[in-house]
Amino acid sequence: MRLRLRPKQPELFEYFVRAARNTASATEAIADLGVPGTPAKALSDRLVEIEHQNDEVTHELYNKLNSSFITPFDRDDMYRLAARLDDVIDHLEAAATLAHLYAAFDGERPPPQMCEQLEVLRAFGELAVTAFEDFAAKRDLKHYWIGTNELENQADRIYRQLLTHLFSGRYDALTVLKLKEIGDVLEEAADAFEHVANTVEAIVVKES
Amino acid sequence: MRLRLRPKQPELFEYFVRAARNTASATEAIADLGVPGTPAKALSDRLVEIEHQNDEVTHELYNKLNSSFITPFDRDDMYRLAARLDDVIDHLEAAATLAHLYAAFDGERPPPQMCEQLEVLRAFGELAVTAFEDFAAKRDLKHYWIGTNELENQADRIYRQLLTHLFSGRYDALTVLKLKEIGDVLEEAADAFEHVANTVEAIVVKES
Amino acid sequence: MRLRLRPKQPELFEYFVRAARNTASATEAIADLGVPGTPAKALSDRLVEIEHQNDEVTHELYNKLNSSFITPFDRDDMYRLAARLDDVIDHLEAAATLAHLYAAFDGERPPPQMCEQLEVLRAFGELAVTAFEDFAAKRDLKHYWIGTNELENQADRIYRQLLTHLFSGRYDALTVLKLKEIGDVLEEAADAFEHVANTVEAIVVKES
Repeated sequence: MRLRLRPKQPELFEYFVRAARNTASATEAIADLGVPGTPAKALSDRLVEIEHQNDEVTHELYNKLNSSFITPFDRDDMYRLAARLDDVIDHLEAAATLAHLYAAFDGERPPPQMCEQLEVLRAFGELAVTAFEDFAAKRDLKHYWIGTNELENQADRIYRQLLTHLFSGRYDALTVLKLKEIGDVLEEAADAFEHVANTVEAIVVKES
Repeated sequence: MRLRLRPKQPELFEYFVRAARNTASATEAIADLGVPGTPAKALSDRLVEIEHQNDEVTHELYNKLNSSFITPFDRDDMYRLAARLDDVIDHLEAAATLAHLYAAFDGERPPPQMCEQLEVLRAFGELAVTAFEDFAAKRDLKHYWIGTNELENQADRIYRQLLTHLFSGRYDALTVLKLKEIGDVLEEAADAFEHVANTVEAIVVKES
Repeated sequence: MRLRLRPKQPELFEYFVRAARNTASATEAIADLGVPGTPAKALSDRLVEIEHQNDEVTHELYNKLNSSFITPFDRDDMYRLAARLDDVIDHLEAAATLAHLYAAFDGERPPPQMCEQLEVLRAFGELAVTAFEDFAAKRDLKHYWIGTNELENQADRIYRQLLTHLFSGRYDALTVLKLKEIGDVLEEAADAFEHVANTVEAIVVKES
């Protein structure tokens, strides 16, 4: 059985708050996919930049963990949580880069369901920031579980409507391939936000 | 090093038996995809219902774990095993829902290889029920490893035949996209059954 | 907190060196995909053979772990590392088998970007062998992190060029589907090599 008594190490929580803010910056940036005339290359570059910023946060956290004898919660869980936050940003970067490589929206707006995906992701990013600030301050996280559940249900419903739309016969097969892949990656980003929340929940349950 | 002596907690095993039964209900239900005239929407709804039932089992297990000082095996392994069982049902629900959203089999039967996939999944579900009952009773699980291996080999062979069939030129590209995705998800469900068995094996090896 | 003092068990490292050599054999074999006239069936069979060889190594390692009270590093990490090495070979086998099932290169060479993917994978295999020998000998692994990073960046760049090439309009949708899936699996093999390196790094950090 593990030791339950652990002195607080508030500065370790700070890394997670910073990573959560990076997910919010990424969802904020990628929302421009839905804005006509956004240069695809610049958007992709911006997401790559946020990805690198977050790699640094993860790296600093790992170094800090490495030099700390006592951590506020299980060390493996901290590695896992950092990796889950990183996953969100990886998926968002991938979506922006695919949109650029496929020239998917040059001259055309994304399908309306994809614009709704971007909105749900933005809400997920905002929720993550509040939730990690509350996590760091050891405040109640009930609103985080409820909010995640609602957004995940919305994301699933919209994703399914996107699939029906794509296969309705109005696009040729190559276009379906391109749009579906971008939509899939956006759906994975929403799933990744849910995995972050599940990882936090598992930690809170264990440590309570 | 961990404590090896642990009092039995038979009621915790019961959650896993119930989850295994849910996987069997799901494979039983989705077998109807191969039956001409099955309403796709009703089938998808049925799988969503089983998914929710299993979410409740997982939730109850987590609460139980949370309030138990001593668990029959490593706590993290119990979380992982519950998640692996959940994965099976998620994939089966996804396959049924895609068939509905794509109207993939309205008026047409699935390719014969896909019907065989459904049969293998049904056998996997039945094997899981027996295996988890034996696991709970601490009976020998050799038949589980052997059965899993056989079914996994069958599933792989059938999946490969499905791919060859789909790309043989008899379908247009959009139809290939739809059918392949459903076949992929069914193959992932078979893989997920294998992961369940691997997770049980890892636990048994550690605790022996 | 865990015990830090552990007697060395050099023979356990040997299994990892053997698995790393298997990944190198697999990348060496699959490089023939780029050689005109290679029989696709024979290549797929060769990869399946290497996959089985490695399953045996993994199996022997698990048995050894099972019968060892003390391990050179955390037991769960050793399971995880063996699984990550296995993933590399699974992806390479999948790519060879898909090329065979789709008759993707009968009479035609792969796109040039796919040949470059095969070259990067070969370099990854060679790097893994050196790195695991150094790991077993407790030598410095800095060159492993640097080399992995460089190869991963190359792999990403090439993969993106492949996607642009595939969607440039020169292939019909069914061909894009086939080639993209093979390219995707090769990219997953490169990612899997990176995951191996990350897993080693996490172990080294923890144990240092």
